[in-house]
Amino acid sequence: MTISVYGMTVPIFTRMLTNLLAVMDKAEANAAERKVDTLVLSNMRLAPDMIPFRGQVMIATDHVKGCVSRLAGRDVPSWPDTEETFDELRARIRKALDLLATVQPEDLDGGDTREVTLKLGGKDVAMSGQAYLTERALPNFFFHVTTAYAILRHAGVPIGKRDYIG
Amino acid sequence: MTISVYGMTVPIFTRMLTNLLAVMDKAEANAAERKVDTLVLSNMRLAPDMIPFRGQVMIATDHVKGCVSRLAGRDVPSWPDTEETFDELRARIRKALDLLATVQPEDLDGGDTREVTLKLGGKDVAMSGQAYLTERALPNFFFHVTTAYAILRHAGVPIGKRDYIG
Repeated sequence: MTISVYGMTVPIFTRMLTNLLAVMDKAEANAAERKVDTLVLSNMRLAPDMIPFRGQVMIATDHVKGCVSRLAGRDVPSWPDTEETFDELRARIRKALDLLATVQPEDLDGGDTREVTLKLGGKDVAMSGQAYLTERALPNFFFHVTTAYAILRHAGVPIGKRDYIG
Repeated sequence: MTISVYGMTVPIFTRMLTNLLAVMDKAEANAAERKVDTLVLSNMRLAPDMIPFRGQVMIATDHVKGCVSRLAGRDVPSWPDTEETFDELRARIRKALDLLATVQPEDLDGGDTREVTLKLGGKDVAMSGQAYLTERALPNFFFHVTTAYAILRHAGVPIGKRDYIG
């Protein structure tokens, strides 16, 4: 009658990041056909003051490592944000997938009631693991994966929602 | 150590739809300043073969009513897709919020193990309520809410991720 914290995190993140890798493969194939450097796609944005594709991918993976680490009561690993090329971005996604593969269901037991502290607007804000998961981690993760997809779609890459959903 | 099906659905949908209403209010105020009819925003798209803003809002609410109805073992209400103006779209979002307000936690008890049948690619596909929630309903819901936000952002509406997250 209830869902484990593991079930609401690891399989979701794993599925969506795996789909994102496939979307990037389609984008790369399309770029080759159009004789466009994938670095152009990496740096595309939907608005001048919005984060480019590469930033969307980096932040999506940040939310993955942040979420499973915080809910497991572990320190969040620090990953320098240096990725620019598609190959570097794919490596970062694979790093997140590798981290997810190490998480066991029991590591996240009790994560919903664990107190999580986030820096929001310069202040430390404490909330339950469940509030963090449902109000912060999942909405943010989906926001950045969808925006990454939307940037490629806007750039004319022939992908459909099925590629996003898997 | 686990999260109720209610906790993974109703509060998430309610929060994100409430934020979407606030985002639309900012978009409307900005359109007035720019002397732009909000109907133009309703019909904006990120790509010619992508669904416009109004469609994103309609499909987001479809996933809300589909998700809570299916997980409660009820028929999914049919809402005609006739909305075009901002006022009509807001009314549809409020209709979804009203539906969410009628759902009690116990209505969704056991929703994770209930068999859900979806029409996918013209075929009936059966899956558990949990698979439906994590692999279909939530990714689709967030996809359409984020894309609605992205269309407005691309149109120059002065909103930030904080408006989306709430």
